[in-house]
Amino acid sequence: MKNFALLGAGRIGSMHASLISASAQANLTYVFDTYQPAADELANKYGAQAVNSIESILEDATIDAVLIATSTDTHVDFIIQAALAGKAILCEKPIDLSTERVNECWQQIKACQVPIQIGFNRRFDPTHASLQQQLHQGEVGELQQLIITSRDPDIAPVEYLKHSGGIFRDMIIHDFDMLRFITGEEVAEIHAVGSTLIAPELAKMNDVDSVMITLKTTSGKLCHINGSRRCVYGYDQRIEAFAAEGMLQSNNPLPHAVAKSTATNTDSVSSLNPFFIERYQQAYQAQLDSFIAALQQNISPSPSFLDGMKAQQLADAAQQSLETGKPVQLN
Amino acid sequence: MKNFALLGAGRIGSMHASLISASAQANLTYVFDTYQPAADELANKYGAQAVNSIESILEDATIDAVLIATSTDTHVDFIIQAALAGKAILCEKPIDLSTERVNECWQQIKACQVPIQIGFNRRFDPTHASLQQQLHQGEVGELQQLIITSRDPDIAPVEYLKHSGGIFRDMIIHDFDMLRFITGEEVAEIHAVGSTLIAPELAKMNDVDSVMITLKTTSGKLCHINGSRRCVYGYDQRIEAFAAEGMLQSNNPLPHAVAKSTATNTDSVSSLNPFFIERYQQAYQAQLDSFIAALQQNISPSPSFLDGMKAQQLADAAQQSLETGKPVQLN
Amino acid sequence: MKNFALLGAGRIGSMHASLISASAQANLTYVFDTYQPAADELANKYGAQAVNSIESILEDATIDAVLIATSTDTHVDFIIQAALAGKAILCEKPIDLSTERVNECWQQIKACQVPIQIGFNRRFDPTHASLQQQLHQGEVGELQQLIITSRDPDIAPVEYLKHSGGIFRDMIIHDFDMLRFITGEEVAEIHAVGSTLIAPELAKMNDVDSVMITLKTTSGKLCHINGSRRCVYGYDQRIEAFAAEGMLQSNNPLPHAVAKSTATNTDSVSSLNPFFIERYQQAYQAQLDSFIAALQQNISPSPSFLDGMKAQQLADAAQQSLETGKPVQLN
Amino acid sequence: MKNFALLGAGRIGSMHASLISASAQANLTYVFDTYQPAADELANKYGAQAVNSIESILEDATIDAVLIATSTDTHVDFIIQAALAGKAILCEKPIDLSTERVNECWQQIKACQVPIQIGFNRRFDPTHASLQQQLHQGEVGELQQLIITSRDPDIAPVEYLKHSGGIFRDMIIHDFDMLRFITGEEVAEIHAVGSTLIAPELAKMNDVDSVMITLKTTSGKLCHINGSRRCVYGYDQRIEAFAAEGMLQSNNPLPHAVAKSTATNTDSVSSLNPFFIERYQQAYQAQLDSFIAALQQNISPSPSFLDGMKAQQLADAAQQSLETGKPVQLN
Repeated sequence: MKNFALLGAGRIGSMHASLISASAQANLTYVFDTYQPAADELANKYGAQAVNSIESILEDATIDAVLIATSTDTHVDFIIQAALAGKAILCEKPIDLSTERVNECWQQIKACQVPIQIGFNRRFDPTHASLQQQLHQGEVGELQQLIITSRDPDIAPVEYLKHSGGIFRDMIIHDFDMLRFITGEEVAEIHAVGSTLIAPELAKMNDVDSVMITLKTTSGKLCHINGSRRCVYGYDQRIEAFAAEGMLQSNNPLPHAVAKSTATNTDSVSSLNPFFIERYQQAYQAQLDSFIAALQQNISPSPSFLDGMKAQQLADAAQQSLETGKPVQLN
Repeated sequence: MKNFALLGAGRIGSMHASLISASAQANLTYVFDTYQPAADELANKYGAQAVNSIESILEDATIDAVLIATSTDTHVDFIIQAALAGKAILCEKPIDLSTERVNECWQQIKACQVPIQIGFNRRFDPTHASLQQQLHQGEVGELQQLIITSRDPDIAPVEYLKHSGGIFRDMIIHDFDMLRFITGEEVAEIHAVGSTLIAPELAKMNDVDSVMITLKTTSGKLCHINGSRRCVYGYDQRIEAFAAEGMLQSNNPLPHAVAKSTATNTDSVSSLNPFFIERYQQAYQAQLDSFIAALQQNISPSPSFLDGMKAQQLADAAQQSLETGKPVQLN
Repeated sequence: MKNFALLGAGRIGSMHASLISASAQANLTYVFDTYQPAADELANKYGAQAVNSIESILEDATIDAVLIATSTDTHVDFIIQAALAGKAILCEKPIDLSTERVNECWQQIKACQVPIQIGFNRRFDPTHASLQQQLHQGEVGELQQLIITSRDPDIAPVEYLKHSGGIFRDMIIHDFDMLRFITGEEVAEIHAVGSTLIAPELAKMNDVDSVMITLKTTSGKLCHINGSRRCVYGYDQRIEAFAAEGMLQSNNPLPHAVAKSTATNTDSVSSLNPFFIERYQQAYQAQLDSFIAALQQNISPSPSFLDGMKAQQLADAAQQSLETGKPVQLN
Repeated sequence: MKNFALLGAGRIGSMHASLISASAQANLTYVFDTYQPAADELANKYGAQAVNSIESILEDATIDAVLIATSTDTHVDFIIQAALAGKAILCEKPIDLSTERVNECWQQIKACQVPIQIGFNRRFDPTHASLQQQLHQGEVGELQQLIITSRDPDIAPVEYLKHSGGIFRDMIIHDFDMLRFITGEEVAEIHAVGSTLIAPELAKMNDVDSVMITLKTTSGKLCHINGSRRCVYGYDQRIEAFAAEGMLQSNNPLPHAVAKSTATNTDSVSSLNPFFIERYQQAYQAQLDSFIAALQQNISPSPSFLDGMKAQQLADAAQQSLETGKPVQLN
């Protein structure tokens, strides 16, 4: 049984509280939030203790792990404090919007050797994970090309987007991680194009809402990511892997399976899942299980801090390519 | 090269004229119709000769085969005349609405030993035929249960229905043949229920527009047919075969493969085929090819006259079950 | 918050314990089982109290509801005791294998007027429920024909089947309830056929393993149920509703959404759900929520005791039709 | 009725001969091929006259149109000769491998003002055409992103590839045309990457077998094309159009519609179409019909010579981007 402290009692924090609480292998002991009423409410619901400073958490020797679900700009500080206190860490992505700060963070914590996992939950989605597994078991031979479709249901308010770090660091970072997860390779070259087809005001912030990215891996595999901040038909998250002996598709699971045929057409009555909380519910659960299992078996959890850093570097390179109009080499 | 005379220049006759004409193995030599302008027009279009009596056809020694596509009540007479003249015969279903007349016909022609094939074209549909083939190759083990869905797009005018022989002899007879084709067995027992949910006036003619039929084959396989005279979403023709080691479905092919996703649902933009001419286009072509191939190889064409007779007996038994409310045993 | 006592700590009882425990509106207070270790283990896991007689439960005024998940032959006694003690009841189907005993039970409890719900969980499956809802909202017009496919993954041991009451009372009873739920009508006539295509030894027990049932409702709607005790490709549970203006299909949801294309074919990598625990997980949850909501709102829970009784009568009539070979009229 | 001369009696020429011959609006009068036996055989099969020089064709005033299906390097000469002789022209793509020669050709023929159509047959495929039509009717709002998947079943022999002009001019040129057809816009920028994942020997020829191309249209729409010379699961030709109010997918039609479910998975028994002759059969027919209709109505046929030229320019630019590693601007 592992005792958890949850940092952050917002929407995503609430979801993590529910998952920790439901796990037969975990207790939710503390809930921290700078906004005290949020911490109180969540702690109360799950029989945990609300705190408004993290010192008491770090000093409590019974706490095994902290789950960091606070705002992005606080991640690095909390990671460092938790690592120095010897706690295992499960931190929401991204580590930080600045790759420089991510590097500094790594310099400070690597000696601590605490287990640390970054919240690339999609690796644990049953559908994506099955594709990755089939591929790595050789079911369709050597991978040649990969297409990732990543479309959010709707654009966030401009105020949020201003501090988001841009579409690559905020949203597509998940897909950069997915690409590394599925190809099992690093990226050698990246080229990104983008347009403001949804929110013209983004242009002023050097940001875009619609992107296409081409990536070439070290062995020459070709990858494409398409992303959009608005997708009216729901949360569209698909992967196609073209390989030497076949093709695998990770399609969108539907909430239910009713079809309707009328004089004009045949509908699947069900729409796509509305957003990530619904779509990746099982993934978040499996992510937590995987983190706990790593702690119990005393192995390094995965995806690692370095996985988080590499996805960030791809996001930076994509932003650079977008701004310069040229492909960027990575090494 | 086989020389054909076509009897009947109506809608279905026109389709056959086009198929014979397009075949590299067949010539369309004569077109007969009692309505001379129809015969003239069709003959003219395909470079054939229009005739208004069939004697000249039967006396012409260069004619190999007659394709009978006239009204049902004339089939038996034309079959007998053509058989006595030694012509091969491809006759549209049903042979006749009266099983007694069908038997008499058989008594008169069986000594002639001319090749004769009944137009159960659905046996030649690529989708249905693939199901039958997979099943008979043992791909899913021994068949246990069979479901046939047979729904016409819309009900014919009451005047037509009055002389149609009822839903079993007019429409479901195709499905009775399909059942025999797929199971490879005869029926031991049949039970039919029906309702007038579409055209209440049918009740006065001892007919119905919606039916469900349960059939048990000699080895105990269980079969179900559902039929309707009106299906607003198109011509619905499907088969499910439940077997010891799996299941096969013959689904509706769609005219094209576009899908549309919007905020409310995902549509297949394409509707089902409107009716049999479109749905079974390839089947009609393959049926003709099969008939010609049998003539060329000097083997008996299939489905045979006896297949036509047996489907008719099932239609009679279904009608009897509907009227008495009791299952009917066959032997 | 409603306090529950759970009767029965077997496989299905364990699932209910987990659901009650996870509900924000319910506490699991007691677990009863005649086999004490099972009760202990389950009670311990969820912080409840294990008991080996139900008296203490019935005497505890803080208990709002009992959930009966014991063996079928004990249902009636427990229902009567709980009703007399004024407890709300959620009882697994079937009420009893004998319709006579079900009637007697009703005579004894109806004056108690306790809320009682029978565990026809499939009414709460998101896919089936969406079909029913679309239909009742008039999305496809008036229902004309209904097809229910109900195929279990594998046959139970013969010892179990001996006391199961036969395929209609044990298995197809769910489908009889579904038919009443979807049509919103009572059945006027039923005809059942069956075969022993999987387990020949069933013939000696007057039972079968493969069935097809035709049912006509009071207004003339035609319904078909096909059932099998073994379905090698998984738990096949589908519904098709043919209506005046369209058709609705409740198809099998798949555990994940990966497709694989190779030189020979395109597979959905995912198999069907293995059995009811997986397939109807959400349905069991929604069933419990619905029961609790009815208690909170002080309305009659549904499906009711009478719904349980009517499904049983259909099972009896199907068995009678199977044995006599004749359709049975109901009134 | 339009009289056609066919230039080229190879595989694709044979297909055109069959289509012209089957058309009710066209006669096949001449077949030309430098390899006399091929011309003889084809002409004989369809009742046309075989010729081994095109002068007799061009001098025959009864000839309305020439269909050019000879080897690519002969296209320009035949186009010029036919144009000068006042014949309407339907020419297989590409016009020529050299854009310079295409320009010169245009300079020589534009004054002739003969109807000329380039064989981008895919515009006439029912599935792709339905997508384009839905989009242009505004069914899903303004287009934002487009993905074209274009994968050939297998790589041609190296000898053929040596003279093919490279993957962009030989194969992807169809997709460049499709992109212009669907977006209704010109391309402002193109970036191409490629790898030799199938045939390493291509590297020596400055060619690749696997490509990904990103294109930005003048209004900022983002487009992606992925292509491969080998696709073991069949001829994979799909389009996805992401738009402001929805998404359209042009999926692969299957030859038949049988599905098989077994213990391990659910297959669509049918594989994809093997190659373009099968996949685009209806498209070739509709292309010819469209050409003939334009002649009859005295309007310019489409896609035009300029459409052919523009696709070629995109192929050149893609090749340049591949070789330089940089995006290429177009104007």
